[in-house]
Amino acid sequence: MRKRLTATEYIEGILAFDISILSRAITLVESRLTSDRLLAKEILQALLPHTGKSLRVGITGVPGVGKSTFIESFGSFLIEKVQKKVAVLAIDPSSQRSGGSILGDKTRMQVLSQNPNAYIRPSAAGDSLGGVSNKTRETLLLCEAAGFEVILIETVGVGQSETAVKEMSDFFLLLMLAGAGDELQGIKRGIMEMADLVVINKADGENQLRAEQARADYARALHLFPPHQGSWIPEALTCSALEKSNLESIWQHIQNYQTLTQNNGFWHINRQNQNLQWFKATINEELQRHFYQNESIRNSLEIVEEQVRAGKTPPMLAAETLLRKYFE
Amino acid sequence: MRKRLTATEYIEGILAFDISILSRAITLVESRLTSDRLLAKEILQALLPHTGKSLRVGITGVPGVGKSTFIESFGSFLIEKVQKKVAVLAIDPSSQRSGGSILGDKTRMQVLSQNPNAYIRPSAAGDSLGGVSNKTRETLLLCEAAGFEVILIETVGVGQSETAVKEMSDFFLLLMLAGAGDELQGIKRGIMEMADLVVINKADGENQLRAEQARADYARALHLFPPHQGSWIPEALTCSALEKSNLESIWQHIQNYQTLTQNNGFWHINRQNQNLQWFKATINEELQRHFYQNESIRNSLEIVEEQVRAGKTPPMLAAETLLRKYFE
Repeated sequence: MRKRLTATEYIEGILAFDISILSRAITLVESRLTSDRLLAKEILQALLPHTGKSLRVGITGVPGVGKSTFIESFGSFLIEKVQKKVAVLAIDPSSQRSGGSILGDKTRMQVLSQNPNAYIRPSAAGDSLGGVSNKTRETLLLCEAAGFEVILIETVGVGQSETAVKEMSDFFLLLMLAGAGDELQGIKRGIMEMADLVVINKADGENQLRAEQARADYARALHLFPPHQGSWIPEALTCSALEKSNLESIWQHIQNYQTLTQNNGFWHINRQNQNLQWFKATINEELQRHFYQNESIRNSLEIVEEQVRAGKTPPMLAAETLLRKYFE
Repeated sequence: MRKRLTATEYIEGILAFDISILSRAITLVESRLTSDRLLAKEILQALLPHTGKSLRVGITGVPGVGKSTFIESFGSFLIEKVQKKVAVLAIDPSSQRSGGSILGDKTRMQVLSQNPNAYIRPSAAGDSLGGVSNKTRETLLLCEAAGFEVILIETVGVGQSETAVKEMSDFFLLLMLAGAGDELQGIKRGIMEMADLVVINKADGENQLRAEQARADYARALHLFPPHQGSWIPEALTCSALEKSNLESIWQHIQNYQTLTQNNGFWHINRQNQNLQWFKATINEELQRHFYQNESIRNSLEIVEEQVRAGKTPPMLAAETLLRKYFE
């Protein structure tokens, strides 16, 4: 067991870009112990003035689309060509990640993980998506305070996590493959309309023509979508994460987005709204956690849910009965 | 003041297709009085075996797309050509509807409102979307028990209500206009991907060619979307609600959907999931209502929200502070 650091040691360490202290602070943020929570709060509050300056990029796509390779290539590009410090946060509420997954992440992004200007951190396994995303938000703030200038927030795009990631991103990038066949299976409907940029990955070798065709199709479709609040028109690009092609063009798009929305005010409004969303989401999640952990609720929930599902009890009445029990 | 009916009188009246008693029952469902709520519960519970047999069609589109005319024409078509009894429920959480709006709805759907096999009911003004949608769900069940075979649930498509409507519909129809210009302004992103059918309205006169072009564009775009859970492939159709053209083809599509998803089981699974969603949504809404109505929360909420919005307090810490106050 290592010596427990003081709040000041954490704060100073993070501000001095001490990655080992940053890691320990994130572990603190992820902890359920009240003493850890209190310390984490103190640190976060003190670091708040040093947060908010990064570019937060959400990245989603189904398994197999090449997210790890893309992040490895794009992250390395940002560090080497654009001289940015890059943090990668991965949310995957569907898998029960543990300490081992950190190793897993380092293995799947081998080059990036060895770069001193990169930091890769998977989100700890949580018992709820809300828990995971709250911790990811706090982790994001810690990374910003440490001086990371681009935060890539990765999610698998098959569950509810992509909405959570969208809500903590400035820019949302959807990775796709050529063809609208099997590889789309599993991606949640509604995600395409969330995207600020669609990137058709694996545009290499024999696949290049198909990728270009898919790009044109998606570009046309994106123009049919309701207009973006920030007056941004989402485009579709191709890329080969493997061959590191077109990364510059993707970066250019993200920069164009930043310039446009910072000038028209949407960037700032979006951040403000996100702050309020985080606040309300936290309240909402905690209220639910408290309710569902209540012993008398836990004892009857399964039976009630089964009755509701089978249509034996009207959902609203079932809810009211449980709520009365809870508030008593 | 009319004589208060007993639960039995309500139940028998509704089952006998007594529209005046149905209306009074809905008023009961919308009431906030505890005595009314208890009576409403008793009625709903008793009628439950008579619910669930209708086809629930959600209809959305921005103001100006011609929703009222469409519902007027399509509703009349269903009654006259398909011999269905049709109820129309309208959700518009953005407007503060009162008794007067019922008259408004009757005015905007003049033919339909006079048909003895039609029933038009706007959702009462609620102080929350959750409140409105809960009441709409219960109203839907009452209409089903009365014997309405198609329930058209209308929403404006610009706020959050369309998600609520999607969650209580078997089939979700998006009305659009030709061209992806101004008329799209205001429609929420993500709605297109929710649609089971896109209908380009106002395909009449000089507009016909443009509508056909738009239809082809949307049809192509819809094919790029992630596949529908029920193996349904959403299409795009044109229609002129004014000239009552193509209504039969729309109905045919809805019937095809019903046949397909009833055969592959999705229809039933969707209904079961919706029951569970309603249940959880009700709990969620009530927990939040209880929290935000708490006096000490109400007193500090505005200031805290302002600090959060301005980035002066981390959202999660602000939430935790309020929650501690609440649970004490």
